Amino acid sequence: MDYKKIFSQSTRKQGSSMIRELVASTRGIEGLISFAGGFPSPKTFPTKELSELYADVVKNEGCEVLQYGASEGDPVFKQALINYEIKSNLKASEIITSVGSTNAIFAYAKCFIDEGDYVICEAPSFLGTVVAFEAMGAKLQGIEVEDDGMDMVQLEVEIQKLIADNQKIKFIYTIPEFQNPTGVTMSKIKRERLIELAELYDIPILEDNPYGELRYCGQRIDSIFEIARMQNKNIVTSVKSFSKVLGPGMRSAYMMGDEVIIAKVALWMQKIIVSSDCVTQRVVGRFLERNMLDAQLQKISEIYKPSLNAMLDALEKYMPSTLKWTKPEGGMFIWITLPQDMSGDELFEAAKAEKVCFIPGSKFYPKGQEKYNAIRLNFTFADPATIEEGVKRLARLFKK
Amino acid sequence: MDYKKIFSQSTRKQGSSMIRELVASTRGIEGLISFAGGFPSPKTFPTKELSELYADVVKNEGCEVLQYGASEGDPVFKQALINYEIKSNLKASEIITSVGSTNAIFAYAKCFIDEGDYVICEAPSFLGTVVAFEAMGAKLQGIEVEDDGMDMVQLEVEIQKLIADNQKIKFIYTIPEFQNPTGVTMSKIKRERLIELAELYDIPILEDNPYGELRYCGQRIDSIFEIARMQNKNIVTSVKSFSKVLGPGMRSAYMMGDEVIIAKVALWMQKIIVSSDCVTQRVVGRFLERNMLDAQLQKISEIYKPSLNAMLDALEKYMPSTLKWTKPEGGMFIWITLPQDMSGDELFEAAKAEKVCFIPGSKFYPKGQEKYNAIRLNFTFADPATIEEGVKRLARLFKK
Repeated sequence: MDYKKIFSQSTRKQGSSMIRELVASTRGIEGLISFAGGFPSPKTFPTKELSELYADVVKNEGCEVLQYGASEGDPVFKQALINYEIKSNLKASEIITSVGSTNAIFAYAKCFIDEGDYVICEAPSFLGTVVAFEAMGAKLQGIEVEDDGMDMVQLEVEIQKLIADNQKIKFIYTIPEFQNPTGVTMSKIKRERLIELAELYDIPILEDNPYGELRYCGQRIDSIFEIARMQNKNIVTSVKSFSKVLGPGMRSAYMMGDEVIIAKVALWMQKIIVSSDCVTQRVVGRFLERNMLDAQLQKISEIYKPSLNAMLDALEKYMPSTLKWTKPEGGMFIWITLPQDMSGDELFEAAKAEKVCFIPGSKFYPKGQEKYNAIRLNFTFADPATIEEGVKRLARLFKK
Repeated sequence: MDYKKIFSQSTRKQGSSMIRELVASTRGIEGLISFAGGFPSPKTFPTKELSELYADVVKNEGCEVLQYGASEGDPVFKQALINYEIKSNLKASEIITSVGSTNAIFAYAKCFIDEGDYVICEAPSFLGTVVAFEAMGAKLQGIEVEDDGMDMVQLEVEIQKLIADNQKIKFIYTIPEFQNPTGVTMSKIKRERLIELAELYDIPILEDNPYGELRYCGQRIDSIFEIARMQNKNIVTSVKSFSKVLGPGMRSAYMMGDEVIIAKVALWMQKIIVSSDCVTQRVVGRFLERNMLDAQLQKISEIYKPSLNAMLDALEKYMPSTLKWTKPEGGMFIWITLPQDMSGDELFEAAKAEKVCFIPGSKFYPKGQEKYNAIRLNFTFADPATIEEGVKRLARLFKK
């Protein structure tokens, strides 16, 4: 039977992942140094602690955690999260757990998006989310990312244009901390301005915050969600993940927001997954309860900080002064802006000969809004010495 | 901000779970005997074995299983499944893992359903799936369930009617083994006829098979998927779950089918969850590899068979002869058909006074196709003595 003719419209339109195919094209290059991935370093995984916790939880709490759990999340995990997010003073009805951030974002988007609705996002932004919104039928309006985050002037202009054009804007999607792909962190002033604009135009904010805990230097800034809570405003929903803190294979994340939204997200969760893995939820809950997170974050910082510094130092040392790059204080990525007439896509092909790779900047834009003169480098997978060698190879491409 | 006015159409239409609310209404009744749930007995959970496997997997394979995994599923788990499903002779591209069956069914449905498309299902059927299809905008056409499964004559009549009416039928959804809610198993002849009809009218089949391994007596019948594979037909997709075999909290399941469909399901999985929990996937994979499943199924049968028999015996002994009920050889449920003029919903309210509960049959139908003269009893959660007492209480309702 030929299934293609009966697939749904949204399924027919979907292509395979461009980034996946790019990465696949570098397979088999011997001695390749890759800055392409978005994978955490396995050195950060707390295998010993987790091995013991999994054993304990299944042995002692198996009758509970092997049974069906609530779509809203494991109560022990949720209580541990409420304690951890003390600043936000959450009720249980304001938080839900999920299979990675992706799952919570998908359910949130299902709550709002009808075919043709607009979502505003940073451009560039995280591709995984962008394609999920597009697959649901949303149109995306990208906003430029400056050194201190989303351009708030352009944001207001675009909102006004869309409203004048009778378009429905369903929410603003932002990654304010060590953004993927740019590494940029939104300033406090811009966070406050974003909340103001959201209130003024009655548009909810979805704050995607997977890297917030990965700060290696500098000063923590309150999340957009925390700032809004302190102002008693319910306009922000926040999603946070343990993927970069414990290990992405555990698919552990949670969403916080107005209880009206969380209840609707839960209704979708019932239909999409029933609940996330109850064993893993309880394990992460016990990990938090036993105050094991601080030491884990310290360990991550000790592993990633030298890599970040190695990359920043090597860029300074080897790269031509005509290039500009971001200087993040945490996260996993650095973004290099190329000269206006240079394409990251072409550079990607040339880089294969030098046995180094990265993701071309164009891959991180909503469809039809691509810019080409940038590349994304990941610094968390390779060790500092490899990073220096990789940047050296990269620099050679600019001397030809 | 008032979110209600900007929720998506499909979100506004969703109600909360009727079954949940029913069950909640019996909370606080002291000494209640419940036949309402669909929960496996915690006595069946292999906590010791799983505790050890979780510890081993995270300790020895942590670097792999704590890392991001493929949306198609953990390769070790998939290989173990391919070996387990030896009769179907699967390629890796014909199988994908999921967060419980619900997740795979949701992704499969996303591949096919556009607003207004038809799905054909048994009536009654599993409510969780029915409401998920409805939430995606599908219309459902229910087909009556006879003692040997879906009525094939009515099925063909309804297919012809819908085609004549220019409706698009996207797939036929069936639970052929110990069906939820009726406990009915589809005969081999009907399975073969279903495949014939599917081929004749070019309509794929989605076989939901969570109870197939829970057979306590009688003869195993090849699954619809297995029969179609042996006939070299790619028209059936099958989803199976470890929820009733190991523990639903682990959310472990998998889908098998034509590789064109599985590839599309994987594209949706990327957007919905990225992948299911890699730790749990590997644990179930090792459980299968080490041939621990046979003993586990044996243990389950030893626990559930006395309960099934206790319920069948008690029904025979205490219930009026005017009632009819199914006599399943496995699974978790028995379906009682009441006299035509009696309502399971009204009986539910009356039963509270007798401190016994169940789910009224009307809750298992597509919207607008409800029938009222039936109730569903679960026999896997209570022990045999409690089951007898519960049926006694139930029988009293018919003497008033």
